[in-house]
Amino acid sequence: MPENPTIVSWHPSKIARPRGCVVWFTGLSGSGKSTIANRVDEMLHDKRVPSFVLDGDNIRHGLNASPEILRKHHSAEFAERFGLTFQALDREENIRRIACVGELFAAAGLIALTAFVSPYRRDRDLARQVVAASGKVGDFIEVFVDTPLDICEQRDPKGLYKKARAGEIRNFTGIDDPYEPPVHPELRLLGGDRPIDELARQVVDYLEQQGKLRR
Amino acid sequence: MPENPTIVSWHPSKIARPRGCVVWFTGLSGSGKSTIANRVDEMLHDKRVPSFVLDGDNIRHGLNASPEILRKHHSAEFAERFGLTFQALDREENIRRIACVGELFAAAGLIALTAFVSPYRRDRDLARQVVAASGKVGDFIEVFVDTPLDICEQRDPKGLYKKARAGEIRNFTGIDDPYEPPVHPELRLLGGDRPIDELARQVVDYLEQQGKLRR
Repeated sequence: MPENPTIVSWHPSKIARPRGCVVWFTGLSGSGKSTIANRVDEMLHDKRVPSFVLDGDNIRHGLNASPEILRKHHSAEFAERFGLTFQALDREENIRRIACVGELFAAAGLIALTAFVSPYRRDRDLARQVVAASGKVGDFIEVFVDTPLDICEQRDPKGLYKKARAGEIRNFTGIDDPYEPPVHPELRLLGGDRPIDELARQVVDYLEQQGKLRR
Repeated sequence: MPENPTIVSWHPSKIARPRGCVVWFTGLSGSGKSTIANRVDEMLHDKRVPSFVLDGDNIRHGLNASPEILRKHHSAEFAERFGLTFQALDREENIRRIACVGELFAAAGLIALTAFVSPYRRDRDLARQVVAASGKVGDFIEVFVDTPLDICEQRDPKGLYKKARAGEIRNFTGIDDPYEPPVHPELRLLGGDRPIDELARQVVDYLEQQGKLRR
């Protein structure tokens, strides 16, 4: 026994929180992932179910920053090693880190809504494993936002397809890099011709059916 | 204007959540960081204030996994590049990722309680910048768990000091790697001779005073 009565060798009792889950949106750029995820976020907020959207806006400038961004506060060597580009290994790490953060949010009791193209089946399966390893199999909900390429390209909200077609961007998913559609997603949304509210409602209904909204 | 009425180019309206904050515990191994953080977590839970502890338990096997762990599901090249060791550059990245995740939790409205040795002043200052950049200066609360080395070494809950003294572990903070105490922490806890509950209470009182518990 330790001599000091205030000794800290006891293992802290973790709180038994209701677990959240990770809703993993995947689909082409412009398919509507981020918009739908944010609408789901609002709907859950109205139901007082804690949730949060992880998307390019809050990930690409922080956790998964590029070498250029990291160079502002870190050495060139550091930025080179840890900054993420769009190359294959970096894409894999990009998805891995997001999955780990999603898992932490789920552990904290939130419904994490991730909105990234995540074009490779293998990376999404790894994300599923990351979440399942710490929780349960049903804690990872893959939502395929299945919007035809021509509609995504017509929308082109960030002008990226135009640049990709002009050869200004390389390895752009759907143009010169493949998108591997999910084989057995928990949910498939027809993103091309349904109103956002209806698509978001489908996700919320699914979560409700799965008992994920109980608090 | 887009032709398709379901077009998604509108910027999603983010929910105006009350912002959380990051409580950054720093101190030697065995100083009591994790135990105090977990006790604060419980106290906040009792007050219905959402919070979550980020510590070695949930970070070192996931987000900041070692090359050895990553090799289980990734290539050797991948594990080598992105796995984190205890070398200087890797420690910097370790802290950076945790700060980014803490910031995301704060953005989601939670009080993130981080419990890592984080021995270098520069890294902690970078963590502060990461949080302040997206929120407010007061969103980063540095808590120095100031427990004398001899007490930490006497406790040695994980047997690490013993190994470090025997030369089995290199670059161990406090033994053959420096700990740089905070100059102006928001809070300094005398970890050596006060009961855990009293130390945790000091943190909760501080958060209350700063208006961080309003929901």
